[in-house]
Amino acid sequence: MTPLRINLDQNEIPTHWYNVVADMKNPPAPPLGPDGLPVPGEKMAAIFPLPLLEQEMSAERWIPIPEEVRQIYALWRPSPLCRARRLEEALGTPARIFYKYEGVSPAGSHKPNSAVPQAFYNKRAGTRRLTTETGAGQWGSSIAFAGQMFGLPVRVFMVKVSYQQKPFRRSMMQTWGAEVFASPTDLTQAGRAVLAKDPNSQGSLGIAISEAVEEAAADPGTCYTLGSVLNHVLLHQTIIGLEAKKQFDKIGLYPDVIFGPCGGGSSFGGIAFPFLADQAAGDKRAARLRAVAVEPTSCPTLTKGAYAYDFGDASGYTPLMKMYTLGHDFMPPGIHAGGLRYHGDSPLVSQLLHEGLVEALAVPQVATFEAGVAFARAEGIIPAPESCHAIRAAIDEALACKASGEPKTILFNLTGHGHFDMASYDKYFAGQLEDFEYPAEAIADSLRHLPRVG
Amino acid sequence: MTPLRINLDQNEIPTHWYNVVADMKNPPAPPLGPDGLPVPGEKMAAIFPLPLLEQEMSAERWIPIPEEVRQIYALWRPSPLCRARRLEEALGTPARIFYKYEGVSPAGSHKPNSAVPQAFYNKRAGTRRLTTETGAGQWGSSIAFAGQMFGLPVRVFMVKVSYQQKPFRRSMMQTWGAEVFASPTDLTQAGRAVLAKDPNSQGSLGIAISEAVEEAAADPGTCYTLGSVLNHVLLHQTIIGLEAKKQFDKIGLYPDVIFGPCGGGSSFGGIAFPFLADQAAGDKRAARLRAVAVEPTSCPTLTKGAYAYDFGDASGYTPLMKMYTLGHDFMPPGIHAGGLRYHGDSPLVSQLLHEGLVEALAVPQVATFEAGVAFARAEGIIPAPESCHAIRAAIDEALACKASGEPKTILFNLTGHGHFDMASYDKYFAGQLEDFEYPAEAIADSLRHLPRVG
Repeated sequence: MTPLRINLDQNEIPTHWYNVVADMKNPPAPPLGPDGLPVPGEKMAAIFPLPLLEQEMSAERWIPIPEEVRQIYALWRPSPLCRARRLEEALGTPARIFYKYEGVSPAGSHKPNSAVPQAFYNKRAGTRRLTTETGAGQWGSSIAFAGQMFGLPVRVFMVKVSYQQKPFRRSMMQTWGAEVFASPTDLTQAGRAVLAKDPNSQGSLGIAISEAVEEAAADPGTCYTLGSVLNHVLLHQTIIGLEAKKQFDKIGLYPDVIFGPCGGGSSFGGIAFPFLADQAAGDKRAARLRAVAVEPTSCPTLTKGAYAYDFGDASGYTPLMKMYTLGHDFMPPGIHAGGLRYHGDSPLVSQLLHEGLVEALAVPQVATFEAGVAFARAEGIIPAPESCHAIRAAIDEALACKASGEPKTILFNLTGHGHFDMASYDKYFAGQLEDFEYPAEAIADSLRHLPRVG
Repeated sequence: MTPLRINLDQNEIPTHWYNVVADMKNPPAPPLGPDGLPVPGEKMAAIFPLPLLEQEMSAERWIPIPEEVRQIYALWRPSPLCRARRLEEALGTPARIFYKYEGVSPAGSHKPNSAVPQAFYNKRAGTRRLTTETGAGQWGSSIAFAGQMFGLPVRVFMVKVSYQQKPFRRSMMQTWGAEVFASPTDLTQAGRAVLAKDPNSQGSLGIAISEAVEEAAADPGTCYTLGSVLNHVLLHQTIIGLEAKKQFDKIGLYPDVIFGPCGGGSSFGGIAFPFLADQAAGDKRAARLRAVAVEPTSCPTLTKGAYAYDFGDASGYTPLMKMYTLGHDFMPPGIHAGGLRYHGDSPLVSQLLHEGLVEALAVPQVATFEAGVAFARAEGIIPAPESCHAIRAAIDEALACKASGEPKTILFNLTGHGHFDMASYDKYFAGQLEDFEYPAEAIADSLRHLPRVG
């Protein structure tokens, strides 16, 4: 009998991250400045330390994980690979369903996988303080934890409406010693400008990014951190898929299809990329592998966006990145999977999708909670709303296997637990959640505002 | 180097629970009825199924764990035994600090260890529905989860003030399919009587117990479940210590001192009893072992109570149990470790303390949060307030080792995470928590109301 959980020992924590750039058909499209020319490294160096910039630009296939990072990873990693046998039985499917459970981290999600190396490299590069922005607080709490591990002070600009309505992730950040401010603040020019216009502003992720970046750019000792989208973030997250491969090796199985929730791309890339390495190397087991990024129908970047250069933020402060985008002024409705509300996507995931190496799928909100509840009732763990997107796709695939009789091996990324998202479950049970599909005309309209390059 | 986490495989989940009764100096004092005579089994059988009653009365040393229970345990067990090396370094202690982490269960605490077998034996005995009471919701969520695992409907009477102020554990229970009512309800005579006197009653644990027991007693298909205090609950919890022993064997160490938080006794008994078995068997490694139950100074049952027969509940509905007690009408102040607010204690833990086989220690509230924050900043995990009591004691022991130079091996039970307790951390950081020591006269006064036996 296949065990329910496949554990690895600490000494089996991978020693290298995998860089998918080495196996891409074409080199990644570079970030561009307003002049249409690639952004010079020095400009980025104002807010990121050199080792992370090198990783951002690297084409090396394997990048060593520093021993100090592995030691912090060892506080919760390797994370378990679990077989959802009770879910299989509940569905009556011949499929084997596996999930990689990232909710075992102190912050309760996969985010610390990148927060820890980001804090480490910053510390080593002499950074004295980190800034970041956070919405509901998943990334903010992860970088607060990671900063504490390396004795690096962290300042988090938390969108004011979340600061007030979702106080508990703020409490976590403070428990790990971070300073948390409700954004907009009067600490930055960006914040003061917003408050001058509207003293009661509830804030937005765009404003919080501006505040965090401004502080980093203004002080040589301060650097900015980001929890998704960028190449180095996806690189760090490949620890997930690399461990999963070792775990599948132990039981002599290999996935036929992989699902990851996809907002900025870090959890999908993290679980899927290492398997693409096998595909690129001609590994027969990976020949038929499908890697599917799962996004909400209410923010259908990969499935209905354009593949084009666009700003990473709403205000147009960031370099232009080539990615699937709904347009940087696209305003997604307030769905409960806050981590998936992003107008753009990881440039790496976008290019792989464009080149046909990965797939994308959009699922409606109510069905994701239905899947999350079915999962909780079979397997125990209550999943984060982001994770529910991958669960929905995995369940649908397992039901298709039931119809076809195929005993596929399905893997999905259970990116986090839902302990801080119970209010969303309440709304689901109360029938207060709605599905939302953005009208095609609205997307077309928003895409008309894509920046002109050069 | 000692690894940071000692894992066991699923096939190493213990096959038997350990019953400390077999190794006690004297047989346990029996529960008594109002007539002063031992309660006849048939009376208890109205609310508990036979297999659990047999365990409650058993003197067998080893009780087999049903395979169906081990299969559900395997969803999260064996739980990790972790070495708190970063905490040791932060303290500068020569001591080795280990913790057994029970927060990995779906409900986030050790409570499912007993909820699962309770649901299983009830299902097998033909019970059609379970009732229970819950305060903050740790036990209620655990039995909701366990009931769902065996297809057994669960009705939870949740103290109204918690139902309103702490909605998220209610959401968890509902996610696992349980019915949750704010107690007092109009579903029971007990509830209606309270509401007739005070329509705005905020409820109490005593009232909720009465409602849950009344429903179980009134319907042959309904049974009542309890999350601590009783012998069979402590029996199930020995899975914690039994696993810990296997884990220590793997690294060739043995604890010198064990700390468990102690309210009703299930988490302390769960981790400590299996080591007492070694002591009873003359195992030399256990000769100097100290097992210490850690309680709050605001509810100092073991350290300042009387060892006497008392009611288990505030209203005097339960049989009389011989235990350390502050008197059944003792009203502990509202400290934040809700799980430790109990006027009495497990009769087994009480008798072992009375016979000098275990020790007890009381710690003040503010110092427990201070310890919890120090732990979180060193080890990542944010602990539940109950667990912080054991952490406080472990840190103090480690600091004593620093002074004496002794490299003791310290083990404590990290019974759960604090994800649903962040409001308490907020109060700690805001300086709003207070220490409270009950005046000796108040305790003496409350002890004057102990029931007369016979």
